Amino acid sequence: MTSAEIATTAGVVDFEPDEPALYTFGGAEPVAMLRPGQVLRTYTEDCFGGAVLTVDDLPSKVCEAFNPVTGPFYVQGAEPGDTLALHVVSLVPARDWAMSATFPHFGALTGTRTTATLHPPLEERVWQYDVDLAAGVVRYHARRSDFVVELPLDPMLGTVGVAPAGGEVRSSIVPDAHGGNLDTPELRPGATLYLGVNVPGALFALGDGHARQGQGEVCGVGVECAMRVTVAVDLIKGVPTPWPRIETDHQLMSVGAARPLEDAYRISQHDLVTWVADLTGLDLLDAYQLVSQAGRAAPGNVCDPNYTMHAAIDTAVLHGASAYGGVHRRLRDVARSMW
Amino acid sequence: MTSAEIATTAGVVDFEPDEPALYTFGGAEPVAMLRPGQVLRTYTEDCFGGAVLTVDDLPSKVCEAFNPVTGPFYVQGAEPGDTLALHVVSLVPARDWAMSATFPHFGALTGTRTTATLHPPLEERVWQYDVDLAAGVVRYHARRSDFVVELPLDPMLGTVGVAPAGGEVRSSIVPDAHGGNLDTPELRPGATLYLGVNVPGALFALGDGHARQGQGEVCGVGVECAMRVTVAVDLIKGVPTPWPRIETDHQLMSVGAARPLEDAYRISQHDLVTWVADLTGLDLLDAYQLVSQAGRAAPGNVCDPNYTMHAAIDTAVLHGASAYGGVHRRLRDVARSMW
Amino acid sequence: MTSAEIATTAGVVDFEPDEPALYTFGGAEPVAMLRPGQVLRTYTEDCFGGAVLTVDDLPSKVCEAFNPVTGPFYVQGAEPGDTLALHVVSLVPARDWAMSATFPHFGALTGTRTTATLHPPLEERVWQYDVDLAAGVVRYHARRSDFVVELPLDPMLGTVGVAPAGGEVRSSIVPDAHGGNLDTPELRPGATLYLGVNVPGALFALGDGHARQGQGEVCGVGVECAMRVTVAVDLIKGVPTPWPRIETDHQLMSVGAARPLEDAYRISQHDLVTWVADLTGLDLLDAYQLVSQAGRAAPGNVCDPNYTMHAAIDTAVLHGASAYGGVHRRLRDVARSMW
Amino acid sequence: MTSAEIATTAGVVDFEPDEPALYTFGGAEPVAMLRPGQVLRTYTEDCFGGAVLTVDDLPSKVCEAFNPVTGPFYVQGAEPGDTLALHVVSLVPARDWAMSATFPHFGALTGTRTTATLHPPLEERVWQYDVDLAAGVVRYHARRSDFVVELPLDPMLGTVGVAPAGGEVRSSIVPDAHGGNLDTPELRPGATLYLGVNVPGALFALGDGHARQGQGEVCGVGVECAMRVTVAVDLIKGVPTPWPRIETDHQLMSVGAARPLEDAYRISQHDLVTWVADLTGLDLLDAYQLVSQAGRAAPGNVCDPNYTMHAAIDTAVLHGASAYGGVHRRLRDVARSMW
Repeated sequence: MTSAEIATTAGVVDFEPDEPALYTFGGAEPVAMLRPGQVLRTYTEDCFGGAVLTVDDLPSKVCEAFNPVTGPFYVQGAEPGDTLALHVVSLVPARDWAMSATFPHFGALTGTRTTATLHPPLEERVWQYDVDLAAGVVRYHARRSDFVVELPLDPMLGTVGVAPAGGEVRSSIVPDAHGGNLDTPELRPGATLYLGVNVPGALFALGDGHARQGQGEVCGVGVECAMRVTVAVDLIKGVPTPWPRIETDHQLMSVGAARPLEDAYRISQHDLVTWVADLTGLDLLDAYQLVSQAGRAAPGNVCDPNYTMHAAIDTAVLHGASAYGGVHRRLRDVARSMW
Repeated sequence: MTSAEIATTAGVVDFEPDEPALYTFGGAEPVAMLRPGQVLRTYTEDCFGGAVLTVDDLPSKVCEAFNPVTGPFYVQGAEPGDTLALHVVSLVPARDWAMSATFPHFGALTGTRTTATLHPPLEERVWQYDVDLAAGVVRYHARRSDFVVELPLDPMLGTVGVAPAGGEVRSSIVPDAHGGNLDTPELRPGATLYLGVNVPGALFALGDGHARQGQGEVCGVGVECAMRVTVAVDLIKGVPTPWPRIETDHQLMSVGAARPLEDAYRISQHDLVTWVADLTGLDLLDAYQLVSQAGRAAPGNVCDPNYTMHAAIDTAVLHGASAYGGVHRRLRDVARSMW
Repeated sequence: MTSAEIATTAGVVDFEPDEPALYTFGGAEPVAMLRPGQVLRTYTEDCFGGAVLTVDDLPSKVCEAFNPVTGPFYVQGAEPGDTLALHVVSLVPARDWAMSATFPHFGALTGTRTTATLHPPLEERVWQYDVDLAAGVVRYHARRSDFVVELPLDPMLGTVGVAPAGGEVRSSIVPDAHGGNLDTPELRPGATLYLGVNVPGALFALGDGHARQGQGEVCGVGVECAMRVTVAVDLIKGVPTPWPRIETDHQLMSVGAARPLEDAYRISQHDLVTWVADLTGLDLLDAYQLVSQAGRAAPGNVCDPNYTMHAAIDTAVLHGASAYGGVHRRLRDVARSMW
Repeated sequence: MTSAEIATTAGVVDFEPDEPALYTFGGAEPVAMLRPGQVLRTYTEDCFGGAVLTVDDLPSKVCEAFNPVTGPFYVQGAEPGDTLALHVVSLVPARDWAMSATFPHFGALTGTRTTATLHPPLEERVWQYDVDLAAGVVRYHARRSDFVVELPLDPMLGTVGVAPAGGEVRSSIVPDAHGGNLDTPELRPGATLYLGVNVPGALFALGDGHARQGQGEVCGVGVECAMRVTVAVDLIKGVPTPWPRIETDHQLMSVGAARPLEDAYRISQHDLVTWVADLTGLDLLDAYQLVSQAGRAAPGNVCDPNYTMHAAIDTAVLHGASAYGGVHRRLRDVARSMW
């Protein structure tokens, strides 16, 4: 723990990371300690470790490792069986540009390491986006024509997780029950992420900011950018959480991570159905029916070692049922008090 | 063809079906003939053939067949290699109630015929919804508690398709390249569905109205209701369509149907990427990149013999590129002229 | 029915087909009628319809349709709910050569129509094998070197099926519960195939002979050859068969057809477990345990619209339990009497 | 490293483990050091840690952890980019009984943690097998009837692996590129397993002996038994191995581990095709064709976090091509010299 980089003022902890160094969940010493109720302000490098600076920097040539995360952070009092709540207060792109790419044998529309084919890889190509904070847009430039278009800026964190269960250490590329590389655009400012705690201190880390991302991240890479990150941290003692969950002001979401994609769907729907039953007192099949008609679903990524899908329902459908004792609302109020 | 049931006035064809009789795409004689530019007004029975009248009518006991469709309709001039355009002008639930159910070994969170397990089936249970056209809601009633909640009425057609290619005849339960049981909520009023024509006359049929449905239709059954259906029909000569596509005023969608679910995703994204490249002149990888960041994706069903997912992009992102020579806008104008 | 081509002598029906004309299961009039107990001798063209004559005949150029089958044959007395037994008496390659190929976007190690990728197709290439009946081998010749090797001749039928249920008509490329393009090397002389009957007369057809095939048929094509086929036909009245089953002198097999591949596995294992329970009186979990330790499993194809896997168990493990009242042994005796 | 437990005589290292303590690959200090060319004699506890002693000991009640492995062993000189060769000299069940079980939400014919369903778990049940070394059989006893049958004893190791790449630590339940819980019956005496080395010393561990196992391990559990294990160790410097490979006196095998099952198939076939091309000088498509017709394939497990399949070809088909410079033959000779 390098205390020099950490400044704590009135419930806010500022942590400025060194060079990208962490590429796993689990297996590393904490870089800082946080108390439930505190707010963390930090920085995350992009998934290329900042090494892709122009469209001529092919990731397979210039990067030695991918998807660095900042952390891990030790949350005081967190023990296995608890739930960590991380409320995303704000995400601000740290540069006025962001990068995307195709990468050899990675993505949904190519043969990959596991969907192994005899095709040579698709062309590796890099796209540079302008990030215009003031206008709230990113600007796409085609590489083989002069087509340009602006897309809404919609910052998100691709990768947030805790140390896995069972003594495992997982690559930061992998999404699973511990979170990790969920790559869902739902993890944007205003959202609270719930993760089950597997080890003392939870040891969460975060990174892989995207200025925006389509649903499924079909080419395997978002609009990757370094990010100024502010998250409010809380702890729900004695309440486990089996799979990542997200709460916003108006909806509850469960995230499944698995292959094939229907299993990610099954996990997320199963978790949402049982969660809804728990929150409303509905019998299991009654909750199944309600989610069947009122639920939404979408893929996060269909390219990572596990695919992700989320299941969502409006809290209004649950007559405003409150999850985890209302922690989301409290954290959102903390967030508002910071503006 | 039973002309007695057909009344044609000024471009509008009214077809009143007899008892449910058609359960396939392909393999049946047409019930009526339509000309491109005409509007069809008809009726579709619910997926239970209207046999589930109370919550005590278990589908496995009272139904002899499932998912009747109305048709097939012969479209004059339609030949293999053309594209049929069906614009959904309006869908009005025909009753003030609708039904849903769990069904033995069917649905995403149960062992099924193909995801074969040794578990006995989950309980078969029926839910009756109130359909309130004036208020624009359906009302869910729990079966094991007094929980009641209103959900927005959002009528859709679960099943619309043409005769398949290769001389195949497919059950109306099956979604595939010919359309069929796509079970996507995107097929709502205002949407134009494009289907590749495989046989002379196209021989389209439709049915399986849902008062609403969650994304993925997790329990396997929507809020099933008989429907008054109005669709405007058109034909794009000499332009094939490989997979079902949907256009609305602001977006283009491709629908994939396959298992595992990632293949439905791949098909839909692949079709959208190539379609976008075609409409914009973007090179294939440039289109891949654009869809990766600007695209949306969601499951239609994760329960039918093939799962479905759609890929969507806003036409604004394509600088307003017009698909199929603007047929959607023309059909939408036809639809408006009917109000 | 073209009686001119049919000659019946003492329980043997000879049927000499015309040009390849049938490419579906279901949807066609029978070409001949058989009685249970009769033996059918006929001819099946190769999957290319005989159009690939040299290594320069690319299938995508020279073939108009794929996988012709001979039939359908009407079995007197067969009704839905019965089981058709087809014992493969002999399969003799009809020529001294056979063909294989890669085919664009078809096979397990390439992007396909449903596992859609942006890769251009792999090279389409044809291999010609020598078929040496006397030596009992086929001879592989590499196309880009002078590597030659002999492999055991092991003739099989890739495609045997009945008309599907529910009024469906399926392409002969498709394997499913009705049989069809199972593409399993287990369907060799000496095996009895059991298929559930779905329509009066069963309407079975057969084709797609392979001089041999690897497990999974990874490139999508076997060693394809026209075949002289002799099958003994029988009928088990009032006993349904949910998925294709195969019996040999020493083992029982269940075949599953589905995607993803684990579902083909699940179907086949589920069917074998319940079949074993039925034959032995074992409780379901006891049968599950026994199959878990004594069972074998292998893929037939991992390239067709549905993948296939079989589950097998030695009848010795079941203390010689006899399936379907011993029909396999009776048919095998018929077969022997023909030599 | 507890040297007291290690005795080395003339190239043989005896290592007697303490209580089961290791449940991961990676993340642990070595327990002993081996030199290439040495033979390791050790003991592996069963997957229940020896805690299931009678059919009344339900694993979910009596076990705290599952699948202990013995090791890790540090191989002198092993560095990333090398290949570790482990030749299974002998596997001798350590007791005259072995155990199997169904386990809640685990196995191929049940809803699981990821193939999430709303079904309650199947009954948890334990079966005790007699292990008769002299007769070379295990004896199955049904639990709900007096059915008894003998099956051939066919000892194998379910779990052999090295420390994973990328700093990962994986549960011993997981099979992947590092080996681990491959659960393939092909890992029997006489086989040489090749694993790519990811960390200095390779750090291999082994366990999960089965007295026998069906292909696919459909109920999720083999005939589990503690095992006396003898393996000969060697190292191929500077030659990487992407996925686990197995060589026997007459065949080469590649093992894929992934979900869905077709990806395990694709990986194994892709690896075998490229391996065959490398060994024979065949062009890639020529090798693809040869494996398509001469290859075998079967599932190892269809129940673990990744499923496994192997692809096999007879070395005779490759005109006796020798892999890894003939290391298998050398190790087999070492093994023979020990009898």
